[in-house]
Amino acid sequence: MAGTPRIAIDAMGGDGGPAIMLEGAALAAARDPSLSFILFGDESVVGPELARHPALAGRAEIAHAPEAISGEDKPSQAIRRAKTTSMGLAIAAVKQHQAEAAVSAGNTGALMAMAKLALRTMKGIDRPALAALLPTLGDNDLVMLDLGANTECDARNLVEFAVMGAAYSRCALGIERPRVSLLNIGTEELKGTDELRDAAARLRAEDHLHLSFEGFIEADRLGRGETDVVVTDGFSGNIALKTMEGTARFVADLLRRAFTSSVRSKIGFLISRPATELLRHRLDPNNHNGAVFLGLNGVVVKSHGGANAQGVANAIGVAASLVKNDLGRRIAEDLDQVRAHEVKA
Amino acid sequence: MAGTPRIAIDAMGGDGGPAIMLEGAALAAARDPSLSFILFGDESVVGPELARHPALAGRAEIAHAPEAISGEDKPSQAIRRAKTTSMGLAIAAVKQHQAEAAVSAGNTGALMAMAKLALRTMKGIDRPALAALLPTLGDNDLVMLDLGANTECDARNLVEFAVMGAAYSRCALGIERPRVSLLNIGTEELKGTDELRDAAARLRAEDHLHLSFEGFIEADRLGRGETDVVVTDGFSGNIALKTMEGTARFVADLLRRAFTSSVRSKIGFLISRPATELLRHRLDPNNHNGAVFLGLNGVVVKSHGGANAQGVANAIGVAASLVKNDLGRRIAEDLDQVRAHEVKA
Repeated sequence: MAGTPRIAIDAMGGDGGPAIMLEGAALAAARDPSLSFILFGDESVVGPELARHPALAGRAEIAHAPEAISGEDKPSQAIRRAKTTSMGLAIAAVKQHQAEAAVSAGNTGALMAMAKLALRTMKGIDRPALAALLPTLGDNDLVMLDLGANTECDARNLVEFAVMGAAYSRCALGIERPRVSLLNIGTEELKGTDELRDAAARLRAEDHLHLSFEGFIEADRLGRGETDVVVTDGFSGNIALKTMEGTARFVADLLRRAFTSSVRSKIGFLISRPATELLRHRLDPNNHNGAVFLGLNGVVVKSHGGANAQGVANAIGVAASLVKNDLGRRIAEDLDQVRAHEVKA
Repeated sequence: MAGTPRIAIDAMGGDGGPAIMLEGAALAAARDPSLSFILFGDESVVGPELARHPALAGRAEIAHAPEAISGEDKPSQAIRRAKTTSMGLAIAAVKQHQAEAAVSAGNTGALMAMAKLALRTMKGIDRPALAALLPTLGDNDLVMLDLGANTECDARNLVEFAVMGAAYSRCALGIERPRVSLLNIGTEELKGTDELRDAAARLRAEDHLHLSFEGFIEADRLGRGETDVVVTDGFSGNIALKTMEGTARFVADLLRRAFTSSVRSKIGFLISRPATELLRHRLDPNNHNGAVFLGLNGVVVKSHGGANAQGVANAIGVAASLVKNDLGRRIAEDLDQVRAHEVKA
């Protein structure tokens, strides 16, 4: 049921394994009393972990999976083990309506391939996309997609990403008419690739959608809070996302060096600690954990492999909000509008 | 002469105009007594500015240019005004061997188009590329290219960028055998586009070059000091560069907010000030100013439009070091090796 989501957890994925995944589930359960869980994994490992979390008592069952997907498994190898692995079985539970969403911190490529094969893309969607929420200086987080599911995209893919990203922004952040921008290397109409210019022309024409198309945005403005959804191909999106991660870490490392460079600066750092802790909290990737595969017949959320329990709980929270707000139906309705407009035109 | 470079300055380009460009030239002149300058611009504006800088006395002459290229001029419009604008005439001075290098803070697209038309690409180079030096946590700056000159690139372009970037690293930073990596969305051999995989295969085969090919690098590792040259197409390079700028500014803004959020944190900030000033210096884009168009018959350096005098002086310093180290000859020699190898194969 949409109001009381049951979440399928791949308990074996992620660097921290079952201990972190179950601690995350327990945190999410304490935050949201409507949630329940099916924990997929090796019974002999997951069982003792489950016993450690009273918050999960009566709200989680274990479903034994003899195997796990590793970080080294290629997608092609992974899909052959869909019926024996914790990841494959968690996705199958969504397909068979035993759960409303699946959350995994395992191998992204394997998760994508398995989810696509088992759940299939929604009617009218050419390719699913990976979307994430990113922090901004504005009031709301930014939805960015695609982040690596599709290395090359045509204009039609980008328009579909815009529709799916806007629906995600509405469901996860409550923004009624999200501002949508295309990532480009300039804001003038003639900049960028043919695909981008074509996608921009189509989005400008689609004025009946639940989004406000804002044209092109350059990568230095992503965190300014000037738009709600940024659409790009999976190659550029992956480059932008990872450059953000790397630059934030780079600045944090320089900051740490600066603050430990003298006794004086160490004292100043200790005094300002509450302020820098606030900054650390704001930049902590765990607080923005949970990338979503959009465009599939079912909700699948990817938690970062290195996320802590707080991060896992946030990823589960993202999954729950998408189920409760019926993301799939919203995307389907908006796609119908695009198609209806195409038929008329 | 290579040992006493004469630099053609587009005195009218950049947000600060002649005042900043001449202050920058004066700073560069004070740092390096071997430099001399030709200042292209409106005589009535540049003349009084020149009189303000004793460091330039006897080392700079003014060449009148009645017009200037604006930020709004399209490349196609700019090239028609090559003979009347300060930018066009500065480039022409390099072509006619009146100057060894040109430095401009004006419109990048116009500068690229004019430089390409006037100086032509080097023999054996399909397309020139825009390269910059970026800060890292390691001992040396990172050379990254292309940053926007070529939206789409094939494998041959990427191999040429690798050769040119390595030559730039040798000339500007003195690294004898630079480590070169291709920017990709994963490090496995199968990741990315056909062009990237093809370029990697070619670079792996070219083991006679003055570079050490290190395979693929992901965007979150750019600032770690693990490689010396990062090669990518102009679209991804522009996205990565601007994401870095935006993220660094984002973190700095959050830091400022954190430090001014309470009296306590303000006091801590004042005490740690010497440390945070060091950080500010390290992240100041003026200290990494000066992007270079590689692959042309002549040195053309683009200074950031918003750079201060310090930044302009750094861009002039980059131009001078490339002239003194004979960048063009080094690129030509390495390209000859690539071609010789192709013929043998």
